[in-house]
Amino acid sequence: MTRIAHYCPVCGTPLEMQEHTGALRPICPQCDYIVYFDPKVAVAVCILQDDRILLIRRGRDPLRGLWAMPAGFMDYDEDPQAAARREALEETGLEVHIERLLDVFHTPNDGGMANIVIVYAAHITSGTLEAADDADDVAWFSKTDAPEVAFLPSQTIIQRWLNGEL
Amino acid sequence: MTRIAHYCPVCGTPLEMQEHTGALRPICPQCDYIVYFDPKVAVAVCILQDDRILLIRRGRDPLRGLWAMPAGFMDYDEDPQAAARREALEETGLEVHIERLLDVFHTPNDGGMANIVIVYAAHITSGTLEAADDADDVAWFSKTDAPEVAFLPSQTIIQRWLNGEL
Repeated sequence: MTRIAHYCPVCGTPLEMQEHTGALRPICPQCDYIVYFDPKVAVAVCILQDDRILLIRRGRDPLRGLWAMPAGFMDYDEDPQAAARREALEETGLEVHIERLLDVFHTPNDGGMANIVIVYAAHITSGTLEAADDADDVAWFSKTDAPEVAFLPSQTIIQRWLNGEL
Repeated sequence: MTRIAHYCPVCGTPLEMQEHTGALRPICPQCDYIVYFDPKVAVAVCILQDDRILLIRRGRDPLRGLWAMPAGFMDYDEDPQAAARREALEETGLEVHIERLLDVFHTPNDGGMANIVIVYAAHITSGTLEAADDADDVAWFSKTDAPEVAFLPSQTIIQRWLNGEL
């Protein structure tokens, strides 16, 4: 992903690219503000129950129509576990409890827009299953009928589940 | 941590705060660019050997003079494991191999400037121990002489190590 910074966000002056702390960075010649681009961070939730996995079907691009774990971007000041619970609720209608951290993925080239994805295992505590927000369907899949899924984290976590490695 | 965006980074127009996707965000009235602030992500490395932990002493603020695990910010397009190896090398002179993910911490109020910190366990593969970059000293500590440390991730990981939970 590229980041855009032509003008200083503090004072509006056109930025100049200069070497700083190991990289070319946009720096303001007027107020000396240095633009450090931060990674776009997504969170995803692996919900397993009775040997089935809960997946949502993406209702928006990128990769609309493919299935994936409930997931989305965390805001900069959000707790990542709270962001994971929020995304699960928004996309599936279910409240979940985070059980444990499963993995952190670097995802520069998987068709999503995140730089890194933090994946948690969770179980359902309440709610009524209903797709909403970025999801246009939500369903349980067994190991014998797992669909084609979008994005490296969902692909990898499902493969580990199929391999009995979760 | 607050983020600054008074002017549009794309076209330089003064931004206006508007409600969008669940939060008040700076939006450009000229080109419709929406500023999504991303979390500042740090990586840290837990290096254990012969029942001792390798810590660096911070040579810069914040919390200059306190000890901590080797750590630093990842650039937006960096692999977090590569960033962890880079930080270990910069601060200790040692090449390390990442063994496993230990945890992800939400750190809004621990005196550091990261929103989240990804912590890996690693072991040394080569190099000569020498403090540099953000570190002005580096040393091994046993469980009986662990020093006061800065930041929630180092405090928590060291407590888990002392408790035999790593």
